[in-house]
Amino acid sequence: MTTIFDKILAGEIPCHKVYEDDNLLAILDILPMSEGHTIVISKEAAPTLDKLSDESAAAIGRILPRLSRAILRATGATDFNLLQNNGPSAYQEVMRVHFHIIPKHSKEDGLRIGKGSSHNLEQNKGQALAKKIASEMSGV
Amino acid sequence: MTTIFDKILAGEIPCHKVYEDDNLLAILDILPMSEGHTIVISKEAAPTLDKLSDESAAAIGRILPRLSRAILRATGATDFNLLQNNGPSAYQEVMRVHFHIIPKHSKEDGLRIGKGSSHNLEQNKGQALAKKIASEMSGV
Repeated sequence: MTTIFDKILAGEIPCHKVYEDDNLLAILDILPMSEGHTIVISKEAAPTLDKLSDESAAAIGRILPRLSRAILRATGATDFNLLQNNGPSAYQEVMRVHFHIIPKHSKEDGLRIGKGSSHNLEQNKGQALAKKIASEMSGV
Repeated sequence: MTTIFDKILAGEIPCHKVYEDDNLLAILDILPMSEGHTIVISKEAAPTLDKLSDESAAAIGRILPRLSRAILRATGATDFNLLQNNGPSAYQEVMRVHFHIIPKHSKEDGLRIGKGSSHNLEQNKGQALAKKIASEMSGV
C-alpha cells in the first residue's frame, strides 16, 4: 500500500526536511500541534512498530536524543513528547511507522492527553500478566 | 535525585517485571491506562530523552518491536501507542527516561489524545524552521 509518506520518501511530494540518513527521514508536520512538531519516518516499509526490524528500530532510537536537542534549541522549548501510534484506534493516520516529536511550549499547546480510564493494577492480575508477557518475550 | 524508578531498579521497591537487559527494565505500570500498559525504564540515569546517550537510545529502540509484539500477544490487543514524556508540562512525572507502551483494546481505553491546537504550517515559516533545525542537527 502506498502512503503519503512513501510519496514523500520518493520525492514525489515536497516536504520540510530537517534530517535524513539511511534509515529515516525527519520532516516538519504540516499540521503541527506546536512549533517544531517533527515526524520521523522509517525508511524500512513497515506499517506499525511491532512489525519493524530490530535494526531499523535501533537506528531510529539512536537519532532521537540528537534530533530532540536540535528541535529544542531551534524552537526554545524545554519540554516535549515523543508519540508513536500503531493502528487506527490508536490515532495512526498513515500506515507506515513514524514517530512524532512534539515540543511543549506551554501547557496549552503541543500534545494534550485526555482523562483516561487508568485504574489500580491488582497484585494478582499484575503478577499473572507480567509472567505472560515475559514468557512471550522469550518466544518473539 | 533519586526517583521511584531508581528504587525499583535497585530492587528496593517491588515491581511486575516483564523484561530486563543491560540497558533497560520493562515493568507493568501500576496505574495502567489499559491492560498491558508497560513502562520501559532506561538504566542509564538521564532525566529526559534529549539527555540520553545515543547508545542507550539505540538499545531501547531496538527492544521496542519485540516488546510490543509480546504485549500484543499476551493481551490480545492489535493497536497501541508508544509515549515518552519529557518535562513537567509534557506530563512527565518521574524524572528518569522511560517509555510507555499502551495497548488500545478499544477507543475508550488506553491513551486518549485531547483536542489540541494544531494548525496549518505556513510555507515560509516551515522552510525557515526546517532550515534552523537542520542546522542544529549538524552541531549537536
